[in-house]
Amino acid sequence: MTDALNAISIAQKGRAALSPIGESGQDVRNQALLHLVGLIDKNRANILAGNQNDLENALADGVSSPILDRLRLTDERLNDLTYNISKVASLPDPLGEIEDFRTLENGLTVGRMRVPLGLILFICEARPGAVVEAAAMALKSGNPIIIKPGKEASLSSYILGDLISEALDLAGLPKAAVQVIGSIERDALKDFLVLSDYIDLVIPRGGEGLIRFVAENSRIPVLKHYKGVCHLYADEYASLDMAISLILDGKLSRCAACNALECLLVHKDIALELLKRLAPEFVKNNVSVRASEEALPFLIEVMGKKVSLAQQADWDKEYLDLILNVKIVDSFADALEHIQRHGSNHTEAIVTKDLERARQFLRSVDASCVMVNASTRLNDGGVLGLGAEIGISTSKLQAYGPMGLKELTTRKFVVLGEGHTRS
Amino acid sequence: MTDALNAISIAQKGRAALSPIGESGQDVRNQALLHLVGLIDKNRANILAGNQNDLENALADGVSSPILDRLRLTDERLNDLTYNISKVASLPDPLGEIEDFRTLENGLTVGRMRVPLGLILFICEARPGAVVEAAAMALKSGNPIIIKPGKEASLSSYILGDLISEALDLAGLPKAAVQVIGSIERDALKDFLVLSDYIDLVIPRGGEGLIRFVAENSRIPVLKHYKGVCHLYADEYASLDMAISLILDGKLSRCAACNALECLLVHKDIALELLKRLAPEFVKNNVSVRASEEALPFLIEVMGKKVSLAQQADWDKEYLDLILNVKIVDSFADALEHIQRHGSNHTEAIVTKDLERARQFLRSVDASCVMVNASTRLNDGGVLGLGAEIGISTSKLQAYGPMGLKELTTRKFVVLGEGHTRS
Repeated sequence: MTDALNAISIAQKGRAALSPIGESGQDVRNQALLHLVGLIDKNRANILAGNQNDLENALADGVSSPILDRLRLTDERLNDLTYNISKVASLPDPLGEIEDFRTLENGLTVGRMRVPLGLILFICEARPGAVVEAAAMALKSGNPIIIKPGKEASLSSYILGDLISEALDLAGLPKAAVQVIGSIERDALKDFLVLSDYIDLVIPRGGEGLIRFVAENSRIPVLKHYKGVCHLYADEYASLDMAISLILDGKLSRCAACNALECLLVHKDIALELLKRLAPEFVKNNVSVRASEEALPFLIEVMGKKVSLAQQADWDKEYLDLILNVKIVDSFADALEHIQRHGSNHTEAIVTKDLERARQFLRSVDASCVMVNASTRLNDGGVLGLGAEIGISTSKLQAYGPMGLKELTTRKFVVLGEGHTRS
Repeated sequence: MTDALNAISIAQKGRAALSPIGESGQDVRNQALLHLVGLIDKNRANILAGNQNDLENALADGVSSPILDRLRLTDERLNDLTYNISKVASLPDPLGEIEDFRTLENGLTVGRMRVPLGLILFICEARPGAVVEAAAMALKSGNPIIIKPGKEASLSSYILGDLISEALDLAGLPKAAVQVIGSIERDALKDFLVLSDYIDLVIPRGGEGLIRFVAENSRIPVLKHYKGVCHLYADEYASLDMAISLILDGKLSRCAACNALECLLVHKDIALELLKRLAPEFVKNNVSVRASEEALPFLIEVMGKKVSLAQQADWDKEYLDLILNVKIVDSFADALEHIQRHGSNHTEAIVTKDLERARQFLRSVDASCVMVNASTRLNDGGVLGLGAEIGISTSKLQAYGPMGLKELTTRKFVVLGEGHTRS
């Protein structure tokens, strides 16, 4: 079978699972999730051994240490994983609810029933847990899913995929509801991306290169973010203590995350004091700074070689590293303009005590998540109350921001009449 | 300037109008709409003369009479148009509303603010009124829009586009918020469809060929329906009178509409009586029938040459004409299966007195609008309470069914903290 035929066959199998999964009761779907928790617990040794194998191969291939870290499974991480699956099982059923249900003046009763989106293609990064979490969210929301794992995680994903199949089977659901396919090359991925007759949605996770490849080659709608160039603007009316805390959290709590802080904008009136206090913190925490011309003098004495003049291209960079851009702005308006030009529609924050500034920032800034007096790192489906997330979208259709279970559903119109006609 | 550069320049201008329109108050946007109503009224003679010119050119080009009918403007149609614009102006502002606003356990206050989707590219059919209605809905929902009119409606659209510009100007809004471009060829359209950095959404209206061309060439998300192969299933528990009324309304009230009835499925237990009563109605109203083998004998005596045996391909056809498929099914399950195989996810209806059948039909049938005891012709944003519609989507992302003002918006997360961090 050629790759293209193989892709069609996988997609057809997934599509055939749409009705059985979408129409199954929530108890059945939750049962499958709880079976999965049990199976992961029972097969810990096997999973960890497979993961060890993946780690050794990755090490031999010279994979970078942040990726090795993502790839690694431990007992503790498996605990987190099974906790997350149980949590998804405990969330309210996103399906079947009829919203905006009402009887119109013309006597028609109209509502909008939440139904699954359809067959999803999920393209993973190295983290094996992502396979399981995506499967759990798809299953809970009634959507069959095809999962292409990161190539480093081949064996771990294979083992986890088998457990997912077993869990589906135990719950009486078709195994094709979750298909974890082998790690394939980009050219073979293209064979899936043209199957718009079968696949309804593509969610790619990973580096900007992969995501651009998917967006450019897909005939299927893609929910994605390319990168997170997240700003924090410290307003002239900011609490300096709070600003410092949010800046350090934004950069240090996990600098490789998409919602990590990449650029600090400081109002000129507080720049001297704020940067004077930040410089030693940056040094202590090994943060390098790319500073604007105005900011450089405030930092160089303490930071020495750890600060340099920012180049024009730096303002658009997502470092995912212990590097921070720092720019002094003359006004609130300049901060807004900088964010509009260089932001990536991901996460933007302001620190201010001024209500009108806060209000205007929330209204004017075009980003999937706009924050007042909070760390950019909080843009996360779990933190923001969605219960779980399958990714963050910076495209605006269907979902803008973290995507939870509801974002994996759509609403169809349901109409009850008594013989109503148009004419 | 090459076509491609011209497309970029138009898209950039539209993009630049995003903030001014999106952040303008609803009074200003409504004012622009009311100015437009006044301008259309004041320029009726001019509009009708331009339209007459379009009609003469279309006639000379041998354009078909249904298209001529869509192209034609009359005083009455201009009345409808200005009424529709006023109605859009009177609808609640879809922007700014913060939904799901609440304070989470972690103390963060989180909400989802409705904001515009972005720059829209709207590709029209022959009807000049569509230009104005799309402009009104885009403006009301804060989205700049580029409108490519149908080529038959060139002069009418040009005149209406000018009036829209004038209305924007009178309200103090940038004219680039609505750009009605000249009628361009498909190749030039491609230059727009790659501009995903500027344009957020494409809505094509028209024939299946045009829509497939757009879907296949667009790098930008497309909201669309290809066709409406709409079914009505007359259940064994149907009221025959109601079934007959809904069938005739579905086929006769406007057979060229996408929500017109294309296929009647009849339960075998009521087939004899229902078809016996329908046959003379079909003859009287000049409806031709393509019948399944089982249905043919019930119709041929009365209908003669107006009924023929349906070919396999007929079951997937959208006739947009006075032709109806008729099939007898052995069971409710067979009806569901036929709809699943041949439906176009547009509009599907059941006629039944049985609650459980109704419930299951609503739940099982995958279509943008599923109806019980109502005509398929009622799948329309105005009828279903959206106030207005810019099209019907059978894709499931962002909108499934008629698209009103809310479907032209997205929701960004807004978060208020008190120095909340992740770590």
